[in-house]
Amino acid sequence: MSIFSSSAKRFLSGKMSRPFKSLVYSSHDVEDCTKVLSLFSYYPQEAVDKSIVLRTLAFPINPSDINQLEGVYPSRPEKTLALGTEQPSAIAGNEGAFEVVHVPSHVKDLSVGDMVIPLQANFGTWSSYRTCKDASEVVKLEGCDKFAAATIAVNGCTAYQMLNNYVNWDSNGNDWLIQNAGTSSVSKIVTQLAKMRNVKTLSVIRDRDNFEEVARELETKYGATKVISESQNNDKDFSKEVLPKILGADARVKLALNSVGGKSSSSIARKLDANAIMLTYGGMSKLPVSLPPSLHIFKGLQSQGFWVTQNSKEDPQDKRRTVQEVARLYAEGKLISPKDEVRVLEWDVDGMSDEQVLDLIKLGITQKGGKNMVALKW
Amino acid sequence: MSIFSSSAKRFLSGKMSRPFKSLVYSSHDVEDCTKVLSLFSYYPQEAVDKSIVLRTLAFPINPSDINQLEGVYPSRPEKTLALGTEQPSAIAGNEGAFEVVHVPSHVKDLSVGDMVIPLQANFGTWSSYRTCKDASEVVKLEGCDKFAAATIAVNGCTAYQMLNNYVNWDSNGNDWLIQNAGTSSVSKIVTQLAKMRNVKTLSVIRDRDNFEEVARELETKYGATKVISESQNNDKDFSKEVLPKILGADARVKLALNSVGGKSSSSIARKLDANAIMLTYGGMSKLPVSLPPSLHIFKGLQSQGFWVTQNSKEDPQDKRRTVQEVARLYAEGKLISPKDEVRVLEWDVDGMSDEQVLDLIKLGITQKGGKNMVALKW
Repeated sequence: MSIFSSSAKRFLSGKMSRPFKSLVYSSHDVEDCTKVLSLFSYYPQEAVDKSIVLRTLAFPINPSDINQLEGVYPSRPEKTLALGTEQPSAIAGNEGAFEVVHVPSHVKDLSVGDMVIPLQANFGTWSSYRTCKDASEVVKLEGCDKFAAATIAVNGCTAYQMLNNYVNWDSNGNDWLIQNAGTSSVSKIVTQLAKMRNVKTLSVIRDRDNFEEVARELETKYGATKVISESQNNDKDFSKEVLPKILGADARVKLALNSVGGKSSSSIARKLDANAIMLTYGGMSKLPVSLPPSLHIFKGLQSQGFWVTQNSKEDPQDKRRTVQEVARLYAEGKLISPKDEVRVLEWDVDGMSDEQVLDLIKLGITQKGGKNMVALKW
Repeated sequence: MSIFSSSAKRFLSGKMSRPFKSLVYSSHDVEDCTKVLSLFSYYPQEAVDKSIVLRTLAFPINPSDINQLEGVYPSRPEKTLALGTEQPSAIAGNEGAFEVVHVPSHVKDLSVGDMVIPLQANFGTWSSYRTCKDASEVVKLEGCDKFAAATIAVNGCTAYQMLNNYVNWDSNGNDWLIQNAGTSSVSKIVTQLAKMRNVKTLSVIRDRDNFEEVARELETKYGATKVISESQNNDKDFSKEVLPKILGADARVKLALNSVGGKSSSSIARKLDANAIMLTYGGMSKLPVSLPPSLHIFKGLQSQGFWVTQNSKEDPQDKRRTVQEVARLYAEGKLISPKDEVRVLEWDVDGMSDEQVLDLIKLGITQKGGKNMVALKW
């Protein structure tokens, strides 16, 4: 006897003759997390016709996804036998863009053809199809491309909430934020969102041979007010002599966004005005956040973290609003889609063997520089 | 013609035949701040009979007083010609205990014989006498000794406000705070105040030959729940194996108090529960506050500073309440007076030459280990 209801069987034999395929893991490996991944094929055991069925369009390979496979990330999905794996397992991936391909009759808020993304992390997005029970588990997006959609939940929301949820910005043109890792995806979104609010951006980027070229792109394409190098960031004479001219007499540097740590973090913190805030949302240098006590004691600096996953759990409605707002900005062309920036790895659903798919994912995990995006070809 | 009014002259010729003597400075020296100090004798140019006149009983030599002379402290008194010095000068010292020796008729809230301390910093306490215009400039204290009184404004208020103004403590016996520099004056006051609230204290002290002896004194005399060494603080195995047994199953470590920095600061921060706060109020190691990004991002750690001087400016009423509350605890014997702990330097007002007084102060500045207190012998 089949495990599927007859209507589910009809559904499967119609739109979904293929099995679901998911990148799953049952254990972790901090040295080489590609070892723990396998591609698992299955027909979902729940009644598919009673579920919302989502066909995957694209998913990024984020550092947090990799850390999750390594077992060093504090948020993780439960491992279960629900898929039919021998060992309890979970599907990798926390965000992605999906197309709705089946909507059960009791679900009113979604239609076949809608593009959605998961509301929360741990959705298990590295998959060809996913199902969910309730429309509240996803957010419907209109008018933005799949690459933008697939990155809104992490990068887009991180940038938006850090900019908007911590500082009372004055739009008089004197308010500034400073951020390191100025070329990161998050920093570029912050830059654009800040400009929309008339908040000026001082972006610090690593020293590099083509510094001028990269700096000009951040300034002209994304709207950074000024880009400086890490060596300028760390240079006391620069801070004393040059920086005041960049900022102007009435500048107020109210927010620092740190995803690097170490010396870079203390150098951006030093440039803040009194009673400002530094948000740490990453630690790329693997060095601790480093803060001269005087900044805390005499300048009233507050240092805290930002984690979109936790914020989303605590306030799902704010996450939903943020996703929709960022999506709207992409749809209206006010934010530049990451589509030209991501490194696309194509998963040809019908044309690739399981081994080829797995190799593709492993390439995405190991390729340096991040911004790897898997796009599914249907 | 005299610069004094006739009634002031009568006052001076009666109770105050001596000139005022103050430790003054017109410049700063970061290498050797004793060079900039001199003892200046003067008769105050304002009408003394219209001022509240205070006779100094004792004043501590605090690190912040020294940093002020060095020119590296962000709060400082204005230098003026008011005393009659050749160069604009200021009187050293930010806190001290005084006896009221004259009260003009318009002042209703003070009486001769009252013990008072200045409400705000930069009062210029390193002096034999001081005057002020208004009773609001001082706080009247009853029932505590002069050594306790002379240290309430900095150490007492710092300890009290850090403990009480940042955390909602549960008095169920499971709430903990952790602090480094556990033998400091502030830490000892924190320890006693915490115990009164049924908040447990984990105090970290430097490794030393007589560790057990010092630890037992902090535990038995001051009421620290547990004292550990810096090497234990920094030891991961200790944190994993031993610490849970010390804290107990339901412990919640909600506050870290850091006056050291460097590795000590990261090690106390790591012992905090989620969404806790670390207050930095000193930087004895001269190393930056160092925080693994994961504590900020995933554990919701907030790191900020505490500076009693700024708090007092922003909320003088809270400072006044705090001073009075701490004084009451001293008066009731609930807090141990620092009198047996301070290193007393006696300024014999009539028996010492100016040179001797200056040498005494210089000794207090240069003697290692802090806790130097100048007591005036009248």
